[in-house]
Amino acid sequence: PRHYRVVALPGEGIGPEVVESALTVLQHLAQQHGFSVQIDRGLIGQPALVKQGSYFSEVTAQLCQGADGILFGAVTQGGLLELRKRFDFFANLRPIRPSPSLLQASPLKPERLQDVDILIVRELTSGLYFGPCGRSIEVDGSYGYHTMRYTDNEIRRIAKVALQKAADRRHHLTIAHKENALPCLPWTRLVQEVAPSFAHVTVESMLVDNLAMQLVMNPQRFDVILAGNLFGDILSDIGGALVGSIGLLGSASLNADGFGLYEAVHGTASDLAGRGVANPLGTIAAVELMLQQWGETSAADRLRQVQEQLLAAGYRTLDLSPQPGDQIVATQELVELFLQAL
Amino acid sequence: PRHYRVVALPGEGIGPEVVESALTVLQHLAQQHGFSVQIDRGLIGQPALVKQGSYFSEVTAQLCQGADGILFGAVTQGGLLELRKRFDFFANLRPIRPSPSLLQASPLKPERLQDVDILIVRELTSGLYFGPCGRSIEVDGSYGYHTMRYTDNEIRRIAKVALQKAADRRHHLTIAHKENALPCLPWTRLVQEVAPSFAHVTVESMLVDNLAMQLVMNPQRFDVILAGNLFGDILSDIGGALVGSIGLLGSASLNADGFGLYEAVHGTASDLAGRGVANPLGTIAAVELMLQQWGETSAADRLRQVQEQLLAAGYRTLDLSPQPGDQIVATQELVELFLQAL
Ligand SMILES: CC(C)[C@H](C(=O)O)[C@@H](O)C(=O)O
Ligand SMILES: CC(C)[C@H](C(=O)O)[C@@H](O)C(=O)O
Repeated sequence: PRHYRVVALPGEGIGPEVVESALTVLQHLAQQHGFSVQIDRGLIGQPALVKQGSYFSEVTAQLCQGADGILFGAVTQGGLLELRKRFDFFANLRPIRPSPSLLQASPLKPERLQDVDILIVRELTSGLYFGPCGRSIEVDGSYGYHTMRYTDNEIRRIAKVALQKAADRRHHLTIAHKENALPCLPWTRLVQEVAPSFAHVTVESMLVDNLAMQLVMNPQRFDVILAGNLFGDILSDIGGALVGSIGLLGSASLNADGFGLYEAVHGTASDLAGRGVANPLGTIAAVELMLQQWGETSAADRLRQVQEQLLAAGYRTLDLSPQPGDQIVATQELVELFLQAL
Repeated sequence: PRHYRVVALPGEGIGPEVVESALTVLQHLAQQHGFSVQIDRGLIGQPALVKQGSYFSEVTAQLCQGADGILFGAVTQGGLLELRKRFDFFANLRPIRPSPSLLQASPLKPERLQDVDILIVRELTSGLYFGPCGRSIEVDGSYGYHTMRYTDNEIRRIAKVALQKAADRRHHLTIAHKENALPCLPWTRLVQEVAPSFAHVTVESMLVDNLAMQLVMNPQRFDVILAGNLFGDILSDIGGALVGSIGLLGSASLNADGFGLYEAVHGTASDLAGRGVANPLGTIAAVELMLQQWGETSAADRLRQVQEQLLAAGYRTLDLSPQPGDQIVATQELVELFLQAL
């Protein structure tokens, strides 16, 4: 029988609520699909600081080592970047697929969302978040700086992931860049260097400002979008607007061995924390990506099916702009509906 | 009689077409409102490189010196950043006000656009575009870097502009930042330092990724948005999506003396160049901002009125998603309609 070990790092805010919800659903799914999951819980963020003296402790790092996946909740900031870096989770995959049942929740006109199916491939362990930074003083007074730094190899490595994904999908890749102001980071040229190995993929290059606009104007024109760490962060939140709520999006962050960190795209949502009303669908979407990565395709597909079925039946957490006639559900209620439907 | 000297820098792509269009309208307006405008034409970008040996030559810089405003067209890249830096045009103002006649062209549902009136205040002469940059080689191979560097004074100076604008408008300021990943650039703290001098302005701080999403989800919640150079670039293009076409937006970039550079937010649009179909409304919106800056308020208001009147009558350039029943117009036709209506 297939067995997997998952490390759960609930973190802060709504993190613990949505992670426990997703784990309940995962365990149920495992029983039905003939595999088993061992769950080890660890600390990250504020709780880790209190109990272990740092946002991301060596204890947590050791726990993650050798697992089949990490299911992460949310933190305000501390620990997440360290975790991503520690295991070299450089390839962040963020699918954007509006649900046909939630067109109402999106600010976009429904006809613009028809068949939108985008995968954002975001570089996650380099760039502006990880370059040299600091604060200092000179003649003009105090200043601070962060460095957007990429080695050519880092760009080629994430480009290959994006090109492979495009080859497995609709064969189209859009590169987000800002070469007219940032010429020392020649994303287009470097991606074009590795692109010939993916013969059937068409590669286009787009200034990130224009891309942000096109993502709102014409989301249907995109297949795979490749972006550096910062640009990918901003573009994927725009994806949250398209689908109607950031609470719906999940992401996978993989290293070269296929080991992965799975998390919702949303943050701690501290206004919602502890009220039992958070949307668990983002973390459940992350579980779906984990199942796909394990090759548990039928379980992953079933998860998606049930989600669509529940949304079609009108069940909505508060973030999904419930309309008259919809059934507003709390986190726990939605989890129970999942278990019943599975 | 009031007299102004404007330096026109048409640049490349559709730049020359839209600048000449806007100048024709400006001259007509001047006659009617009792002021006169002298126009000096200069070179920037590709044409400047060919004729003067650099994208932004000393000849052009001298021409701009002492003018009452610079009307800029578009360049692919060369010359614009140098021009902005040379005259310290640090305060870039980008208004986002969807026209009631163009709700059809926007990807957003009309009810989300009702009464949207946003001013993006973007820092324009520092940050990632202007920090130390280069390419080099180390153990991991070649790499490139750009530095997002801000002195505290640069942040305070643009914050004061944004706070003043908020005080003149609806008293609300949103700061775009990314302090959870870029802690060495403490925008929130620095803005809060200068905010007490603007007693009636409410200041909120928002992560730029979330802000990009909120701008699409709830544009009505914003009044003034303050952003650094890179974030402001991306956020204002999202503004282009909201209004239905980037071709509609104009911007003013001012230095501490109130001397300004006025330009459309769009780029060279080389696919449209030379075909006579470009939308001149972005550059005309820039002229409107120039008139406001001069205190020629009635002329500025008249320009806006006529624009709304022409859009309400169904005149559309190609970028404005013309519908059955609309009247598709070329650049020159739209200019003539302006002259007739004025
Ligand atoms: C919490 C923050 C540092 C993080 C990021 O910017 O990467 C988050 O916004 C995300 O997108 O995962
Ligand atoms: C042409 C480019 C360098 C410029 C910028 O990024 O500032 C443009 O996109 C703009 O917004 O004015």
